[in-house]
Amino acid sequence: MKLGMIGLGKMGSNLVLNLLDHGHEVVACDISPEAVEKMKKAGASPANTVEELVQSLEQPRIIWLMVPAGKVTDQVVDQLGGLLDSGDIVVDGGNSYYEDSMARAEKMKTRGVHFIDVGTSGGTSGAREGACFMIGGNREAFAEIEPLFQDMAVTHGYYYAGKSGSGHFLKMVHNGIEYGMMQAIAEGFEVLEKSDFDFDYEKTARVWSHGSVIRSWLMELTESAFANNPRLEGIRGVMQSSGEGLWTTQTALDLKAVAPVITLSLIMRYRSLEDDTFHGKVVAALRNEFGGHRIVKEED
Amino acid sequence: MKLGMIGLGKMGSNLVLNLLDHGHEVVACDISPEAVEKMKKAGASPANTVEELVQSLEQPRIIWLMVPAGKVTDQVVDQLGGLLDSGDIVVDGGNSYYEDSMARAEKMKTRGVHFIDVGTSGGTSGAREGACFMIGGNREAFAEIEPLFQDMAVTHGYYYAGKSGSGHFLKMVHNGIEYGMMQAIAEGFEVLEKSDFDFDYEKTARVWSHGSVIRSWLMELTESAFANNPRLEGIRGVMQSSGEGLWTTQTALDLKAVAPVITLSLIMRYRSLEDDTFHGKVVAALRNEFGGHRIVKEED
Amino acid sequence: MKLGMIGLGKMGSNLVLNLLDHGHEVVACDISPEAVEKMKKAGASPANTVEELVQSLEQPRIIWLMVPAGKVTDQVVDQLGGLLDSGDIVVDGGNSYYEDSMARAEKMKTRGVHFIDVGTSGGTSGAREGACFMIGGNREAFAEIEPLFQDMAVTHGYYYAGKSGSGHFLKMVHNGIEYGMMQAIAEGFEVLEKSDFDFDYEKTARVWSHGSVIRSWLMELTESAFANNPRLEGIRGVMQSSGEGLWTTQTALDLKAVAPVITLSLIMRYRSLEDDTFHGKVVAALRNEFGGHRIVKEED
Amino acid sequence: MKLGMIGLGKMGSNLVLNLLDHGHEVVACDISPEAVEKMKKAGASPANTVEELVQSLEQPRIIWLMVPAGKVTDQVVDQLGGLLDSGDIVVDGGNSYYEDSMARAEKMKTRGVHFIDVGTSGGTSGAREGACFMIGGNREAFAEIEPLFQDMAVTHGYYYAGKSGSGHFLKMVHNGIEYGMMQAIAEGFEVLEKSDFDFDYEKTARVWSHGSVIRSWLMELTESAFANNPRLEGIRGVMQSSGEGLWTTQTALDLKAVAPVITLSLIMRYRSLEDDTFHGKVVAALRNEFGGHRIVKEED
Repeated sequence: MKLGMIGLGKMGSNLVLNLLDHGHEVVACDISPEAVEKMKKAGASPANTVEELVQSLEQPRIIWLMVPAGKVTDQVVDQLGGLLDSGDIVVDGGNSYYEDSMARAEKMKTRGVHFIDVGTSGGTSGAREGACFMIGGNREAFAEIEPLFQDMAVTHGYYYAGKSGSGHFLKMVHNGIEYGMMQAIAEGFEVLEKSDFDFDYEKTARVWSHGSVIRSWLMELTESAFANNPRLEGIRGVMQSSGEGLWTTQTALDLKAVAPVITLSLIMRYRSLEDDTFHGKVVAALRNEFGGHRIVKEED
Repeated sequence: MKLGMIGLGKMGSNLVLNLLDHGHEVVACDISPEAVEKMKKAGASPANTVEELVQSLEQPRIIWLMVPAGKVTDQVVDQLGGLLDSGDIVVDGGNSYYEDSMARAEKMKTRGVHFIDVGTSGGTSGAREGACFMIGGNREAFAEIEPLFQDMAVTHGYYYAGKSGSGHFLKMVHNGIEYGMMQAIAEGFEVLEKSDFDFDYEKTARVWSHGSVIRSWLMELTESAFANNPRLEGIRGVMQSSGEGLWTTQTALDLKAVAPVITLSLIMRYRSLEDDTFHGKVVAALRNEFGGHRIVKEED
Repeated sequence: MKLGMIGLGKMGSNLVLNLLDHGHEVVACDISPEAVEKMKKAGASPANTVEELVQSLEQPRIIWLMVPAGKVTDQVVDQLGGLLDSGDIVVDGGNSYYEDSMARAEKMKTRGVHFIDVGTSGGTSGAREGACFMIGGNREAFAEIEPLFQDMAVTHGYYYAGKSGSGHFLKMVHNGIEYGMMQAIAEGFEVLEKSDFDFDYEKTARVWSHGSVIRSWLMELTESAFANNPRLEGIRGVMQSSGEGLWTTQTALDLKAVAPVITLSLIMRYRSLEDDTFHGKVVAALRNEFGGHRIVKEED
Repeated sequence: MKLGMIGLGKMGSNLVLNLLDHGHEVVACDISPEAVEKMKKAGASPANTVEELVQSLEQPRIIWLMVPAGKVTDQVVDQLGGLLDSGDIVVDGGNSYYEDSMARAEKMKTRGVHFIDVGTSGGTSGAREGACFMIGGNREAFAEIEPLFQDMAVTHGYYYAGKSGSGHFLKMVHNGIEYGMMQAIAEGFEVLEKSDFDFDYEKTARVWSHGSVIRSWLMELTESAFANNPRLEGIRGVMQSSGEGLWTTQTALDLKAVAPVITLSLIMRYRSLEDDTFHGKVVAALRNEFGGHRIVKEED
């Protein structure tokens, strides 16, 4: 098939290479000319603007977005809205909030354009060699582009989940689970680190990756991380988050769905962003007030 | 090699079959004559008592225990203590508390008997077809029986972790991680269940098992569970626990290792054992006291 | 002073009585004629409609709202918007979301009407005998009505916190703290209940109310609750919530403010609304999948 | 009455002053001669050793211990065991673990000595001016010394809870509740601190101390802490703990009593002891492995 790809970052460029491997024609577009040039060398047709990309595709066009969620996606979708024709298909493969995707699909629908929300998982290596896709939106439009998923995904690696928003909803929840799994694994190693035993963490992660109940890709990555850096020296335990964990948590609270572990995983990430906390100061001051307990001073 | 197996439950009997497949000679012992008979039919030598088992092995003997942790293990180890000779090796492959294993090893050492603590993971299917072993205890004794692990484990599926207790410590932490992972996965499906979308959970678990960041054996088992029962109808959400999660939590608290997610996973299991809680009654009564908020009566 | 009160529920009617005690003139309005009649008997002037209430006050009018947050408040504020004149003051003493209050103040400002957001605490008894008020909005408008707070509040029981929204923000956080405190107290009694000792809970709450570090109004209410019902028999532990805990939690997450205890208190309330959970079913099914652990059936 | 006090630290010395105020005769003993001298000046009889103290009391002796829990208490109790006579009464007013108290009472009983376990709350000011006591042990022995509690406690400030251990059990749970309440209050201020509003924390704590649902001694102490240091400048948010929170948590877990908020309060204290965490490093490393997300370096 022929399609356009907007956004050639770590995920987008790997998806392009993946598509080219499978014989698809890709028109590749990015605000960075270097990124476009790189894809051109790999076999894609270059497009330096969204207009150019739209013009180089025949109707019905297929355009895949792999750009940052939020404002950038809004901007690109708005721009496409003015350029596309009835029957065209826009796929948002990024980490958009599912309600945004539902609103965009609604808006696009007024022009006859199909908007498909696709959650993409598997990391950068998955994008290159076989990813996992959760797909929501119009069923007929999905059917038209299903061959792309057959080629880009690992076997059994895509699922059409139904109406608009369902793809990004699944991806959101997937990331919430990911937060919980990562925190659980990490806490396990924290217990090992504080124990009196002298474990080899790479070997520990390896044995847990082979035949155990907790074998998982994340455990394999843990093995790899410890192979690179046996005690994770020089790494600050700052746990960034990109928004999907927060959405899962907020959605769970709104739905009154009981999700303490996913929620706590997010809260511990926020805690890790701080060198000190105001709540800690309050508790320390209170202990001093009632019991005369010593306060640790900042200069200590 | 030739060895004795005491305890022919789900795990023990599968390990015997696994050993027989690999050409080992097994003397199989259990308090249930039926269990012994079953293993005899499979090719093991039967032993109806521990004494009989000990007598049918030549020195240095290798005896593998696969009996319930706690009192039963204590009893069998004590009994063996009076029967074994210097140089014999006792392997505890069950879910014993690591400090108990350390104490048992110390006691056995006074008679020259080696006590090896082995955490076994992989479930009943793993025991049969290839499990995961975490091993602690005397290095030389481990080296003698290493061929057993090479045969019973999946590739890379065993790890000699060092001194006595380290094998069961690793298994304990493994189970703590397992609690956290399971709770995270389960909470994800709770969010799906409460949402307005209409997801097919088997297909969801399948796509998450193929190419995603959260792919794992537990996710494959989730797929299998939903394949058997698409909405888990008829199942009460009672989450039993067998002790290892509690030990991990207690150990984390003792070590001041920060493990909120593993801890919360256990607390939610305890919560699931109750139809109602006393803390809930207190909060309901308090809300009524200060705000006149309606109390739900038990007969409601 | 003379003022109008709209909303004569448990809180509103007690505030009216409190105001009348202090010699203020109150025009009392409610959709329930009985509620109006009751206040009339107590000494208030009756008003059966908002229009009537507005007409019976001289400019600059002071109107206090004590109606349910959300839609009802929206409706009344909109209605007032069309009836009031520049210089009038509207006080929202209910549990409105602080961002709603900020938006309402902005809207009212275009007509020259001051909108003061007031968080009211102390329960129904406080409303009657001396409450606690957290106040946000225009400083001059607050100064005009400060005598009302001096009379209705306990000593030191009101605080002008600054710009619009700050009063309801403080009340929101107050309620978040309340959730955490109540859950902590309730968990303490849960531990007592599960212990082998035979505590008298009323006496326990009484001793903890006198001289201890945890003495508090909530502990006094706990004593009262146990005095009424020593084992809380017949009460279901269903912990309802009215929204402020959720807002605190959501706000904390948005601000990356670390608030695990307030958040968990809310999650446990949600958990208490369910007889069974889907996440529990998933964990139970998974344990059966890998370990053959028995599932509890719903009919059990 | 006449009694001996062993341990003249912050709590013990204030209890002595409290007892002297009420006309009791106190023999005061401490390993620090200065502490003994200070109490001598205040009107107590000095004793530089435990033997001296025992000799200066007539049978049946009453001896109150106010020494650090654990080893020191063990040592003093053992020493007393060799010196006391049948009918003597030993009171442990410190923060001992309730099971230790039960064991000590059992041991003392063999010599006919009564051992009363007393949890003392109210901080140093309470010890001086009126504290709160939770009392376990032999009922007759309690009756003999009840006048002491009548004098040292605030009105309604003591409770005889029953058999040996019940006093310290109640104190333990009291402290667990205290952890939860403090954390809840502290989290509330954390949300205020991160908000866009500009709150005066002293005034906030004051208004919350007057008429609100969350009014409490801890909130009054919060007001006092902010009066001393409006933004808690110079204070590190290090939240120490002295053991009772851990015991409450462990006991709750052992009893399968659901206490997530008390538990999390303790875990956040442990978190506050660390500048960085190993679990944080693991999560950061994992995010880098699968998504190429940037790691924060320690030198950053």
